[in-house]
Amino acid sequence: MPSTLSYHLSAEEIGRFLHEDCPYGDLTSALLEIGQKAGRITFTTRHETVACCTEETARLFEQLGCTLVAFESSGTLLPKGAPLLEARGQAGALHMGWKAALNLLEAASGIATRTRVLVRDARMVAPVIEVVATRKIFPGTKAVAAKAVYAGGGLPHRLGLSESVLVFAQHVAFLGGEQELWARLPQIKARAKEKKIGVEVTDELGALAAARAGADIIQIDKLGPDDLRAVVRELRNSGLPLVIAAAGGINLDNITAYAASGVDLLVTSAMYWGKPADVAVGMEMTGQAS
Amino acid sequence: MPSTLSYHLSAEEIGRFLHEDCPYGDLTSALLEIGQKAGRITFTTRHETVACCTEETARLFEQLGCTLVAFESSGTLLPKGAPLLEARGQAGALHMGWKAALNLLEAASGIATRTRVLVRDARMVAPVIEVVATRKIFPGTKAVAAKAVYAGGGLPHRLGLSESVLVFAQHVAFLGGEQELWARLPQIKARAKEKKIGVEVTDELGALAAARAGADIIQIDKLGPDDLRAVVRELRNSGLPLVIAAAGGINLDNITAYAASGVDLLVTSAMYWGKPADVAVGMEMTGQAS
Amino acid sequence: MPSTLSYHLSAEEIGRFLHEDCPYGDLTSALLEIGQKAGRITFTTRHETVACCTEETARLFEQLGCTLVAFESSGTLLPKGAPLLEARGQAGALHMGWKAALNLLEAASGIATRTRVLVRDARMVAPVIEVVATRKIFPGTKAVAAKAVYAGGGLPHRLGLSESVLVFAQHVAFLGGEQELWARLPQIKARAKEKKIGVEVTDELGALAAARAGADIIQIDKLGPDDLRAVVRELRNSGLPLVIAAAGGINLDNITAYAASGVDLLVTSAMYWGKPADVAVGMEMTGQAS
Amino acid sequence: MPSTLSYHLSAEEIGRFLHEDCPYGDLTSALLEIGQKAGRITFTTRHETVACCTEETARLFEQLGCTLVAFESSGTLLPKGAPLLEARGQAGALHMGWKAALNLLEAASGIATRTRVLVRDARMVAPVIEVVATRKIFPGTKAVAAKAVYAGGGLPHRLGLSESVLVFAQHVAFLGGEQELWARLPQIKARAKEKKIGVEVTDELGALAAARAGADIIQIDKLGPDDLRAVVRELRNSGLPLVIAAAGGINLDNITAYAASGVDLLVTSAMYWGKPADVAVGMEMTGQAS
Amino acid sequence: MPSTLSYHLSAEEIGRFLHEDCPYGDLTSALLEIGQKAGRITFTTRHETVACCTEETARLFEQLGCTLVAFESSGTLLPKGAPLLEARGQAGALHMGWKAALNLLEAASGIATRTRVLVRDARMVAPVIEVVATRKIFPGTKAVAAKAVYAGGGLPHRLGLSESVLVFAQHVAFLGGEQELWARLPQIKARAKEKKIGVEVTDELGALAAARAGADIIQIDKLGPDDLRAVVRELRNSGLPLVIAAAGGINLDNITAYAASGVDLLVTSAMYWGKPADVAVGMEMTGQAS
Amino acid sequence: MPSTLSYHLSAEEIGRFLHEDCPYGDLTSALLEIGQKAGRITFTTRHETVACCTEETARLFEQLGCTLVAFESSGTLLPKGAPLLEARGQAGALHMGWKAALNLLEAASGIATRTRVLVRDARMVAPVIEVVATRKIFPGTKAVAAKAVYAGGGLPHRLGLSESVLVFAQHVAFLGGEQELWARLPQIKARAKEKKIGVEVTDELGALAAARAGADIIQIDKLGPDDLRAVVRELRNSGLPLVIAAAGGINLDNITAYAASGVDLLVTSAMYWGKPADVAVGMEMTGQAS
Repeated sequence: MPSTLSYHLSAEEIGRFLHEDCPYGDLTSALLEIGQKAGRITFTTRHETVACCTEETARLFEQLGCTLVAFESSGTLLPKGAPLLEARGQAGALHMGWKAALNLLEAASGIATRTRVLVRDARMVAPVIEVVATRKIFPGTKAVAAKAVYAGGGLPHRLGLSESVLVFAQHVAFLGGEQELWARLPQIKARAKEKKIGVEVTDELGALAAARAGADIIQIDKLGPDDLRAVVRELRNSGLPLVIAAAGGINLDNITAYAASGVDLLVTSAMYWGKPADVAVGMEMTGQAS
Repeated sequence: MPSTLSYHLSAEEIGRFLHEDCPYGDLTSALLEIGQKAGRITFTTRHETVACCTEETARLFEQLGCTLVAFESSGTLLPKGAPLLEARGQAGALHMGWKAALNLLEAASGIATRTRVLVRDARMVAPVIEVVATRKIFPGTKAVAAKAVYAGGGLPHRLGLSESVLVFAQHVAFLGGEQELWARLPQIKARAKEKKIGVEVTDELGALAAARAGADIIQIDKLGPDDLRAVVRELRNSGLPLVIAAAGGINLDNITAYAASGVDLLVTSAMYWGKPADVAVGMEMTGQAS
Repeated sequence: MPSTLSYHLSAEEIGRFLHEDCPYGDLTSALLEIGQKAGRITFTTRHETVACCTEETARLFEQLGCTLVAFESSGTLLPKGAPLLEARGQAGALHMGWKAALNLLEAASGIATRTRVLVRDARMVAPVIEVVATRKIFPGTKAVAAKAVYAGGGLPHRLGLSESVLVFAQHVAFLGGEQELWARLPQIKARAKEKKIGVEVTDELGALAAARAGADIIQIDKLGPDDLRAVVRELRNSGLPLVIAAAGGINLDNITAYAASGVDLLVTSAMYWGKPADVAVGMEMTGQAS
Repeated sequence: MPSTLSYHLSAEEIGRFLHEDCPYGDLTSALLEIGQKAGRITFTTRHETVACCTEETARLFEQLGCTLVAFESSGTLLPKGAPLLEARGQAGALHMGWKAALNLLEAASGIATRTRVLVRDARMVAPVIEVVATRKIFPGTKAVAAKAVYAGGGLPHRLGLSESVLVFAQHVAFLGGEQELWARLPQIKARAKEKKIGVEVTDELGALAAARAGADIIQIDKLGPDDLRAVVRELRNSGLPLVIAAAGGINLDNITAYAASGVDLLVTSAMYWGKPADVAVGMEMTGQAS
Repeated sequence: MPSTLSYHLSAEEIGRFLHEDCPYGDLTSALLEIGQKAGRITFTTRHETVACCTEETARLFEQLGCTLVAFESSGTLLPKGAPLLEARGQAGALHMGWKAALNLLEAASGIATRTRVLVRDARMVAPVIEVVATRKIFPGTKAVAAKAVYAGGGLPHRLGLSESVLVFAQHVAFLGGEQELWARLPQIKARAKEKKIGVEVTDELGALAAARAGADIIQIDKLGPDDLRAVVRELRNSGLPLVIAAAGGINLDNITAYAASGVDLLVTSAMYWGKPADVAVGMEMTGQAS
Repeated sequence: MPSTLSYHLSAEEIGRFLHEDCPYGDLTSALLEIGQKAGRITFTTRHETVACCTEETARLFEQLGCTLVAFESSGTLLPKGAPLLEARGQAGALHMGWKAALNLLEAASGIATRTRVLVRDARMVAPVIEVVATRKIFPGTKAVAAKAVYAGGGLPHRLGLSESVLVFAQHVAFLGGEQELWARLPQIKARAKEKKIGVEVTDELGALAAARAGADIIQIDKLGPDDLRAVVRELRNSGLPLVIAAAGGINLDNITAYAASGVDLLVTSAMYWGKPADVAVGMEMTGQAS
C-alpha cells in the first residue's frame, strides 16, 4: 500500500547526514588500516517493523561508493529478524556510513511503525477514521517524518502554514474576540474556496459556534474522550456536513478511546516522539581488498 | 553552570527551520488580515524545565523582524509556569515563527531536561560519574542535540567518527579476529597518542582482554547492572588505570542501578528519545498596527 | 490589505541573489576608486506599481552594510514616480547591491502589479471571484512569486504537490480509465477528510461525471469562455455544493470573459510571465568618505 | 552549433527545483495508490522550439530513480510536435518530477526560442551583429538564463559586476561629473589591460566624449533607432576602433530597426521576459508494478 | 586606495567557517566553565601586513553575539604591532570564534601582503605594469582570494571560464591544429565583440602567429625573462596594439626580472601559495559575567 | 597504507568547486564551437607526488557527464611522470572541469606530499613520533586538508574545538591565573574521562606545573629544539605518563631537529602552507562528436 515513497530526501540532505556523523573519515578504521578490505553490511529488524527510508539509506551507501545488494521498500511491514538492507563495499566506506544509515533507518522506521500501530488501533473501533500527524516535529526532520507517516499508513495533518487554513486562539487574539471570527468566516470561506476552513476550539460552546459560523473542520483540542463524545454528538445533531477532529494528548495508550468518540480525524504527534526502531547491524569481511 | 551555550546553530540552520514550517507565509493570518497588528508572543514552561535553544529562538524571531523582550539562557533550570522567552512584532511575523520556535524550544528543552534527570539520578549513587550522550540522534539534529546535552549537564560521548577511537566488533570483523586487535592495539596507541583508545566489549572475557591489551576505555555493551558490577570489580582488580563505560539500554528507569555498578561513564541515548518539553504559547494584541 | 508579507525570503536566499550578480566585487567601482564615497540609492516607480519584496531589498542592502532610510511595504499600490526604497552607504556597497536589488524589486513588483490587474478585472464582472496563481513558475522563484501573488491580492492555487489533491489525466493514466477514478473517489474523500478533492476535466461530460462522483472542485481546463459558461450552468443545475475553477489560457486580455462565465475561481499563470515592473534607480554622492 | 551546453546546473540546484514543487511527495498519487505502477512520461513541443535544459531535466528524473529513454540536446531547433524528452519509471516518481521538469523545460526553452528569433531577425539586416543578453534576470535564475541564451545563439552581455568594466551614470555620480571620468579613463585602461572599457551614454555628445576619452565600447542607452543611427554615423566618422552597442527598450518588435542602425551589438533582456515555451506532457502506464 | 572591499563573503560562508572549526561548542571552555565571563579579543599584526577580511571577521564575531570595538579596513597597510581588530563579548563566544577568525585574517592578509610586494617590486622596474592573479586557487577559496588580491593592489586575471576568452593548447587540441585557430580567430572576435581575445603561446613563433591572426592579448607561458624580452621586442615591432602577458613560474624572487621584460601584465599565482600572515591574538577578562 | 580515504568531499562540495571556476560555461569553448568533440583529459605528476583527492576529481568529471578511465587512489606515492587520472567525454565538459579538477588535485596532493616528507624526516630520527596537523587551515578547506594529511601519513591534531581538550593561555585569561587552572584540572579530568587533557605551555616552569597538576598532554609552544630537549628531559624525569608535543614554527627545514628533542608529537601546519603539487594536464581529441 505504500505508493510515492521513493526518494523523499535529496542527495544533499543525505550528504548532510553523512557529514554530520563522519565529517573527516573514521579515525578508528584509519588507525586499524582496514579501510580497503572488502565487506558487507546488513541491517536486520529486531522487532516487527515498518521499513522506512531504505531508499535513502541505499543512496547514502551509493554516495560512499558502495553497491546495494537489496533493500525493502519503505512502507513494507517486516517481522522480527528480517533483512532491511544490504550493501557491499570497502570497509572504510561501510564504516563511514554505518551509523548515519542506522540512525536514519531507526528514526524513520520508528515513526512508521508507531504510525501503523496508531492507525491499526484507531481503526479497530472506527474503521474509516484517519490518523493525521501534526507539525510538532523535531526541527529539521520534516522530510523524514512525513515519509514515515505515509509509510505507516497515516497522513500528514498540515505540512506547514502555507497551504491550509486553521484558526487558533492565537489568531483570534488579533481579531479582538471570537465574535469577530464568526463574523469574518464567511468572507474567508469565499476567498479560500479550495480549502476546508478549520477552527480549533476547546469546548462545546466553541465547537457549535464554529460550526454555525461555517467552519468545515472543527478541531477540538484537549478534551477527554468522554467529553469529546458529547461534543461530537451535539455537532452531528446539527446536521452540518462537518469534519470533526480531535487533537491534544492523543497517544498510543488512549487512541482507541479517542477513536471511539465519533470524530473523523485524530490529530496527533505521538508517532514522532518515541523510541527509534531497533535495527541490528552486521558487518562481515568478504575479501582482503576491493 | 551553562557555559558556551550561545548560538550553536547558524543563522542558515534557523532559517531552514522557519522555511520548513512556513515556506510561503501563514495563509490563515493572510485571510484574516491580521498580519500588521502589533503583538506579543510568550513562551512559558508547563513543568520543571531546563531551558535550551532560547538563544536560537530569539534569533529566529529577529530574522522575522521581531524584537526580543527577554529570554532565559540555555541551561537554566526553570520551575513550572516560568517565562522562557518573549518577543514583540507584527502578528504576521509572530505567527510565521510560532510553531518553528515552539518545536525548537520543546525539542531542545526536552532533551536538556531529561539529561538533567539522568545526571542527577546517576550522581545520587555515584557522585563523580558522567552521563555521556551517544551518536544515536535523529539525523540532522546534532547541533540541537549536542547543545541540549550540555544544557542538561551531560557531555557528548563521541560527536562523530573523526576525532575519537572506539573499536567495535564491526571493526574487528575486518581484522580476522580479536587476537589481531589485541596485537595491533599497542601500535594504534602509539599513533593516536592524543586519544584514549576505547574498545567495546560485551562480556568479562572481552573486557579483561581489552584491558590487558592496553585499551584506555573499556566500553561494556548491553550487560545488566549486576553482571556489569561483577565485570567492573574484575577490571578494577587488574590495577590498570582504566576508564570503564557502560552502554546499551541505559534509561531513566534503570540509570541508578547502572550508576551503582562502579563504572565511570554511562553512555546513553535516553535523553534524545522521549517527549518534548511542554511549553505554553500565548499571543496577545498590543496595537492596531506596528 | 497586505498582511503577512514581511520576510518571505531567507537571508541566505537574498545572499544568493547578491552573489549571483556580484560574486567578487564591482570591478568598475574598484577601478574608479569610488568605493568609499558616501552615497544614497533611490528606487522610484515609473508607472503605477504594486510594491513587492521591498522588505527583502532592504535586507539585501543591510547585508552590504548600508542603512535603510525608508521603503514602502509589499502590497502597497503606488502611483508613477513614487519612491519605493531609499538606502545610504558606501558607493562600493551601493553598486554591489544595485542590480540584484533592482531585479528583485522589478520581478516581484511586476508579478504583484499584474496580479492586481487580473483580480480587479475579474471582480469587475464577478465580485467574489478569486484569481489563483498556478505552479507554473520559473524554477527557483517560488518564494518571490508567492509573495507577489499575495501582494497583488491573489492567492496561490497549489504551492506544490504535497498538501492538496488535484487529479489530472496523468493520474488517471495509471488507473486504467476514468471509471476507476469515479469508483475510487469516495475512498479518497474518506481518507483526505481535511482537503477538498479536485478533479481536472476538459469537457461537460467529464465535469458532470466528476461532480457526481463526489469531487469538491471541478477544474475545467482549456475551454473557451462560452463553452465554459454552458458547463458551469449544467454543474450549477446539479445542485451539488461545487467549487468550479477555470484553468488554461486565462490572461490579461480574456480574464473578464472568463470571470463572467460563472466559475468560482480563475486559475492562471498570467501574472508570472510578463514584463518586470519598470523602476528608476538614482545614485547620488553625499560625502567624500563614509 | 550548441557547444558547451551540458550540465550548467548542479545536482543541488536541480534538487532544489524538485523540492520546491514536491517537498513531501504527491498527495494525489499517494491517495490513488498508483505510485508503484510502471510508466512513461513524454515531453513534446507544441510549437517550433529551441530545446534547452533537457540535460538537466534528464538528471532531475534520474534523481528520482527514473531511466532516461531519450532527449534532444540543448540548442537543437525542433519543429512543432517533436519529442523533447522521454523517461520511464514508477508512477510515483514520474508525478513527483513532472511539473518541476516541465517548468524548467518551458522556462529555458522559452528564453532560448526567443533568443533565436531575436538573433535571426537582427541578422537579417545586419549579418554580423550580436545579440547579447543583459543582467536583468529574475533573481536566482542566472544559470538557466545563461544556458538558454547560448542555446538560442546569443551571448551573455555581462554575467555580473566582477569581470567586465562598464561605467554608468551611477558611477559618475561619485566622481563629481563626467569630466572627471574622461580624465580618469586612460588610467583605468592602463589598469584593466585585459578588458575592453565600456561607457554607457545617452546622447551623441556623451558618445563622442566617451570615444575621445578612450572608451572601447560605447553603449548607447534608450535612443530610438533613428537617433541611434545618427550617433553611430558620427562615431564611425571618428575613425576610432569602437564597439558600439545599443541598449534599452530593444525587443522582438523593434530589433530589426535597431539592428539596421549600424551598431555592433544589441543589448537586450527581451529574451527573458516573455511566455514560457509550450510543451505537452503525456503519461502512460506500461505495467502494474516496476 | 582599497575601494569595494566590504563584505565579499556572505553571512552563510562566514557561518560555514565557524562551523568548520567549532561545530558543537568549545569543549575546553565548557569544562572550565568560563563561558559567561566578559572579555575582549584583540588581533595584532606581527609584521608589516596588508589587512584583509577584517570586515568579514567583524561579522563572524557579530554572528556569535559579540560587539565590535574597531577594525582596520581591508587594504590598509599596517606596520608590525598594529591592532587589526578588537571585539568584546562572552568568553564562550570569543573562544568559539577565535581560530576561525584568525585563520581567515591570516590567510587573507597573507595573500594581500604578498600581492602588495609583487606589485611593488614589479612596478619598481615597470611603473605601469599590472600584476594579475590566476585561477589557480585552493578550491573553495575564491571569494577570499579575490578580495585579498584587490586589497594588495593587484587585479584578478580571470575569475572563471565564463566571462573572458583565453585560448589554450587544450582548446586547440580539438581544432585539429593551430592553423585552424588562426583561421577562426576573426570570427571569434566578431562574436565576442566586448572581449579582448587572448591566446596562450609558448614561443616566439606562436606569439607572432597569434598576433597576426588578430589576438588582442598574447599570453606567453613559461619563458624565462631573457627569452621573454626577445619575444616582446618582436611583438612590439609588429606595430599591433597588443597586450602582452607573461605567465608561468613568476614569483617573488623573479618578478622584477619578468617585469623588466617589457610585458604589460604579469600573470601569477605566487600570492596565493605562501605562508599566512602572522597575527597575534590576545584575550583578556573584563568582567565576571556579561 | 591509505585506508578510509574515499569520498571525503560531498557531491555538493565538489559541485561548488565546479561552479566556482565555471559558473556559466566556458566562453572560449563555446566560441570555438568545439564543445561536442569527443576527447580525453589526462593528469600526470611532474615530480614525486602523493596522490590525493583523485576520488573526488573522478566524481567531478562524472558530474559533468564524463567517464572515468582510471585514477590512482589517494595516498599512493607516485614517481615523476606517472598518470594520476584519466577521463573521457565531450570537449565542452572536459574544459568545464579542467581547472577545478587541477586545482583540487594540486592543492590536495601538495599537502599530502609535504606531509609525507615531514613524517619521513621526523621518523628518520624518531621512529615512533607522530606528525599531527593543526587547525590553521585556509578557511573552508578542512575536508580537503584532513584527507591530504591522512594521505601523506600524518594525523589530524584537533579537527575542531568540540571533541578534544586543550587549554591555552587564552582560556587561562578567564580563570584569573594559572594557579586556578592547576586547581581545576582534576575536576576537568574527572568530567572529561574519555579525553586526554592537554595544556599548552611555553616554558619549563609551565610544563612541569601542568604535568604535576595532572595534564595528560603537555604541548610546548615556540621553544627552539635545544630548549625543548631540556624541557622534555625534565618532564620525562618526572616519571609521569605524559604525552609531550611540540608546536609553533615546526617546518620542513627544522623538523628533524624538533623530532630529535624527544617529544612524542610534532604539531605543525607546515604541510598546509606551501606550493601545490605540479601536475601536467593533457587534452586530446578522440572523435568529431560524442
